[in-house]
Amino acid sequence: MSVRTEQSAIDVMKARGSVKKYEPGVEIPEEELREILELAGRAPSSWNLQHWKYLVITSREMKEKVLPIAYNQQQVVDSSATVVILGDLEADKNFETVYKPAVDNGTLPQNVYDALHGQVEAAYQNPQLARDEAILNASLSAMQLMLAAKAKGWDTCPMGGFDKKKLTEVLNIPPRYIPVMLIVIGKPAAPARPSSRIPVDKLIIRESF
Amino acid sequence: MSVRTEQSAIDVMKARGSVKKYEPGVEIPEEELREILELAGRAPSSWNLQHWKYLVITSREMKEKVLPIAYNQQQVVDSSATVVILGDLEADKNFETVYKPAVDNGTLPQNVYDALHGQVEAAYQNPQLARDEAILNASLSAMQLMLAAKAKGWDTCPMGGFDKKKLTEVLNIPPRYIPVMLIVIGKPAAPARPSSRIPVDKLIIRESF
Repeated sequence: MSVRTEQSAIDVMKARGSVKKYEPGVEIPEEELREILELAGRAPSSWNLQHWKYLVITSREMKEKVLPIAYNQQQVVDSSATVVILGDLEADKNFETVYKPAVDNGTLPQNVYDALHGQVEAAYQNPQLARDEAILNASLSAMQLMLAAKAKGWDTCPMGGFDKKKLTEVLNIPPRYIPVMLIVIGKPAAPARPSSRIPVDKLIIRESF
Repeated sequence: MSVRTEQSAIDVMKARGSVKKYEPGVEIPEEELREILELAGRAPSSWNLQHWKYLVITSREMKEKVLPIAYNQQQVVDSSATVVILGDLEADKNFETVYKPAVDNGTLPQNVYDALHGQVEAAYQNPQLARDEAILNASLSAMQLMLAAKAKGWDTCPMGGFDKKKLTEVLNIPPRYIPVMLIVIGKPAAPARPSSRIPVDKLIIRESF
């Protein structure tokens, strides 16, 4: 039986809520932010292509630019960081980065690499698949990001309410990426409001419809 | 400083991996499965519409039916449960369930309810939005499910490799829902293979592209 001072995973899941009001002027230390993003990057992904990038906004100037794009939701400026979760529409281009080292160190045969690469390239011919995969996998990472932040004592709020086209223009986001959501990170000025939940029994279907 | 015996959230995130080989014949107790799904259902979602359902397959008969649909990936039958994560294409229909109790208990004014409801209904006129939201929010819940399972001592593997059309037919999934991924849950017969990661510094963009 080991002694731990960090919150258990289940406590963190129960304690996390979407915080809307932040204490302004709190800086998040670079090292903590990096640790949170490193944990977020450990999410699983289709073909392990890691379809995510994190555009981190901490400067007052950029937050002010994003504020109207996020329909003036004050948490964008009051929180410590706004992270734009980007989904990668061309994650197939990560294939070599992800798999080549295993070929080089002899743990992945070249013919298996080639077959898998062919499968991925064929799948990515379909733009709807590319979009679905970008959103799906970036969202897996986003959830892990929120829990990692909470585990390190930070609150978050995921935000879908923003003008995607304007954000893309203002932040100069290349066409390879789509902004999937914003996540603000900071110290709460007010706790998360209690959030109503559909009872779990209404979420479960057994064996088949 | 409190004493905890459960794994810390960060330990769970670091320990989770996609396990491909399971010890066959292990049943997951109903109560544990329910607790895992209850935690999964605590994920955040757009407008709190909770765009997820969990189709849980534990019977040998149904696993055998799903096996060829999942391209004969043996973990479907060897694991304790296969959960089909469903994304709700008509999550706007959850609006009343989620928000009406707050109107009834006086914490949400009727005019705010009506305005928000109108906003949601307008958004759901767009089928691409409905699909994106189904995938995004179901994926947030899926990540929390995998971490909840790991925290409770179970391993998982998310699977995107299955025939969505056939699965929909065989499990009689109504058109309201799309299968976003399968997650198998069980006791490992072999540990997860180490998974290569893109270094975090390559994932971060600061302020703007």
